[in-house]
Amino acid sequence: MNVDTSVWPPRYDPTYRPDPTADFWFPELECLHPGARDALILDKLRRQVAWAWERSPFYRRKWDAAGVSPATLQSLEDLAKFPVVQKAELRLSQAAAPPYGEYLCIDPGEVVRIHGTSGTTGRPTVFGLGSEDWGRIGEAHARILWAAGIRPDDRVLICSFFSLYLGSWGALCGVERLGATAFPFGAGVPGQTLMAVEWARELKPTAFYGTPSYALHFAETSRREGIDPRTFGLRTLFFSGEPGAGIPATKRLIEETFGGRCVDMGSMAEMTPWMTNAECRHRTGMHLWQDLVYTQVCAPETFAPLPFGAEGTPVYTHLERTSQPMIRLVSGDLARWTDEPCPCGRTYPRLPDGLYGRIDDMFIVRGENIYPSAIEDTLRALEGFGGEFRVIVSRREAMDELLIRVEYAASHADPARQAKLSATATARLRVRLGVHPVVELVPEGTLPRTEFKACRVIDDRDLYRRTLQEVRR
Amino acid sequence: MNVDTSVWPPRYDPTYRPDPTADFWFPELECLHPGARDALILDKLRRQVAWAWERSPFYRRKWDAAGVSPATLQSLEDLAKFPVVQKAELRLSQAAAPPYGEYLCIDPGEVVRIHGTSGTTGRPTVFGLGSEDWGRIGEAHARILWAAGIRPDDRVLICSFFSLYLGSWGALCGVERLGATAFPFGAGVPGQTLMAVEWARELKPTAFYGTPSYALHFAETSRREGIDPRTFGLRTLFFSGEPGAGIPATKRLIEETFGGRCVDMGSMAEMTPWMTNAECRHRTGMHLWQDLVYTQVCAPETFAPLPFGAEGTPVYTHLERTSQPMIRLVSGDLARWTDEPCPCGRTYPRLPDGLYGRIDDMFIVRGENIYPSAIEDTLRALEGFGGEFRVIVSRREAMDELLIRVEYAASHADPARQAKLSATATARLRVRLGVHPVVELVPEGTLPRTEFKACRVIDDRDLYRRTLQEVRR
Repeated sequence: MNVDTSVWPPRYDPTYRPDPTADFWFPELECLHPGARDALILDKLRRQVAWAWERSPFYRRKWDAAGVSPATLQSLEDLAKFPVVQKAELRLSQAAAPPYGEYLCIDPGEVVRIHGTSGTTGRPTVFGLGSEDWGRIGEAHARILWAAGIRPDDRVLICSFFSLYLGSWGALCGVERLGATAFPFGAGVPGQTLMAVEWARELKPTAFYGTPSYALHFAETSRREGIDPRTFGLRTLFFSGEPGAGIPATKRLIEETFGGRCVDMGSMAEMTPWMTNAECRHRTGMHLWQDLVYTQVCAPETFAPLPFGAEGTPVYTHLERTSQPMIRLVSGDLARWTDEPCPCGRTYPRLPDGLYGRIDDMFIVRGENIYPSAIEDTLRALEGFGGEFRVIVSRREAMDELLIRVEYAASHADPARQAKLSATATARLRVRLGVHPVVELVPEGTLPRTEFKACRVIDDRDLYRRTLQEVRR
Repeated sequence: MNVDTSVWPPRYDPTYRPDPTADFWFPELECLHPGARDALILDKLRRQVAWAWERSPFYRRKWDAAGVSPATLQSLEDLAKFPVVQKAELRLSQAAAPPYGEYLCIDPGEVVRIHGTSGTTGRPTVFGLGSEDWGRIGEAHARILWAAGIRPDDRVLICSFFSLYLGSWGALCGVERLGATAFPFGAGVPGQTLMAVEWARELKPTAFYGTPSYALHFAETSRREGIDPRTFGLRTLFFSGEPGAGIPATKRLIEETFGGRCVDMGSMAEMTPWMTNAECRHRTGMHLWQDLVYTQVCAPETFAPLPFGAEGTPVYTHLERTSQPMIRLVSGDLARWTDEPCPCGRTYPRLPDGLYGRIDDMFIVRGENIYPSAIEDTLRALEGFGGEFRVIVSRREAMDELLIRVEYAASHADPARQAKLSATATARLRVRLGVHPVVELVPEGTLPRTEFKACRVIDDRDLYRRTLQEVRR
């Protein structure tokens, strides 16, 4: 095998690539008997936990307080004794020890890449990745893209924004390692979709990466130009950043629109390699690539692991990350897991319905995670805010639109003051959320008061509700 | 030495990195006696030309017609016998043999990266780069960034758009190879500059890459937030895409604004590694890194090489590019060259005043090359165009603004038809130019007719004029 798992982190052969006709990148790992895999996972887990224990004051304190240490890990079941990590803890740690937090387990000088989230819940989160981690992310993503059907002769059009967002960079990194042709076109600038369509017509990409809503926007733009999206010849479309590609109706729509396979992927940016939740080309729900990131579907209150068949929230643990390892990070997503076999032959458990809900009030707009509390926090800091607001998420031409209805204070009856309030609110929300909102002002007292944050959000897209209905039907 | 130049293309040791205190990446090459360097260049040139001759119908035809072949190259002087390549020829070749043209000298399946220009002169140009070329671009850029003063402990904020544009990707590739921390933030989306400022405040980058005009926009945005740009602690700011960083007044302004070194770089996207025109940390004008790309400053009409001291247009020749090698590509820029020594000790010739003008009517807006002919071509295809237009380039808050004053036909007196014309013109020009223009309609016959395309452009920024005055004073 072309990976040495006797050392930790495992050592990959950067020149290895399977024969294009092979179904698997590493058949020995992907089709391993689950019991044998658990032994491999336990071995990697113990070394990963020891690494964090020795280098991270964040984990050392947390585990000390819970009475656990690397010695606790006698079996995989013992992992449940370790306390979970919530995203808010990471932000606090970064505020106390900027910029990377007390869970950076390499020297800051060894960080070769900085990315982040735009900080919708307040402080942004900074991702610092080491050179060797970056290499292993490429190894993991190449192997997983192979399972999705991508081969070295593919030309992959990457239509997502290249900036803080790790989605785009992670996709690029995997495509590069796999040896396919990468066309990192990006997205997000006015007029860019039309340009992407024209380049696609010229270059005939065979694969596409982006968000599901962007793919549909891309298709509508093509049709307006008189181009049937099926004529691009896309064989594979793979997605992350939104639950859409795992929703049966959306998956069908994308496959009918483009005539290619719609493959759902993605865990969380913190968990990069984020492709370790990923469908294979059979699209039977996302496999959990457990020997790369160890995932347990857990009870949303106790975070105790649940048996196969149950619904809960995925809790993720890195197995080969040296820079900012996550040990039991709570996703907050909602999923059901199963160990029923997949026709591909991989022996990984699966999320047959993908990630179809949330255990909190977070929602996703254009790939950005948005919390109503961040909107509230921003508005409350504004002079002239009238005290209440509503969030209306809708989809226009397949692109998400975020409308925020904001009360203005009685002191702001003057139109000039309102114009200023509106402009300031728009600008600040844009920076805080990472998404451009439409702000609509209404007089103070117009909106009914609510006790529950989630009631402030009206999601016309109904992504989650529709999926939940489909899942539970 | 950690590069084997006895083979072609040369073989670099990807693990090599000099001691951080070293002044040079490859002192043996950078400080070589010019005569000895010429022998090395001739050797590389012969193999580069033979490579293109054997694999490219484009070059074979062109050179056959001119009566030259690899055997012609008995000395470096013989290169002048080879006909120059104009950008228009590349577009024609790509139209005839899409997408890469008949000068792709590797198998299309070996292309690992696609980039391009947005095609302001009509057809976009497609860049297809091979995996080994991409590695060598990293080697070249790391070595040149080292000369600019970048070291592995630097944190480099990259504020330019990650899409077709090779500038951003080339900068990233060099930073990665050098082992510094890359923070590829990007640019171009509304509100992004404010976010970049907030991230810079948090992460304290030590180096910056972008266009000069974007750096000044970034500084103004900082000041509006109450942040003195000097407090970021930027030691080095390096630039390409615009002539600004080579203009003494702009260089002074950038250095005073940020308190760091302003380093001018950049040849052409076609010539990537585009950093082979680059200043060292002494900022005495761009060195021509002749053993990577062989540059001759030539007479603008005959393209005969000129002696040191003369003004002409740089003509570039790749020396280690296998994918789309350029042999005598005409830049169209205007520069003066010299072999006077630089305090750094490198023995390369220099462009002491940078690239300060054009031999044609091209102008640059936000890093995009724009030809008046492309604007004319787009407008003439529109129903309702009144026959004449003017281009006004100005700078608002340090960002270039492109205003296009367009006549509407007498048939379009109706405001609704005008609104449609305006919207269509804006959208089509945006796609064609890669820059968002402001379109202003005026009645047919308002604008004086002109015979000369250049007279249609009013450049309020006066970048080139100011430099020419400074140079010739």
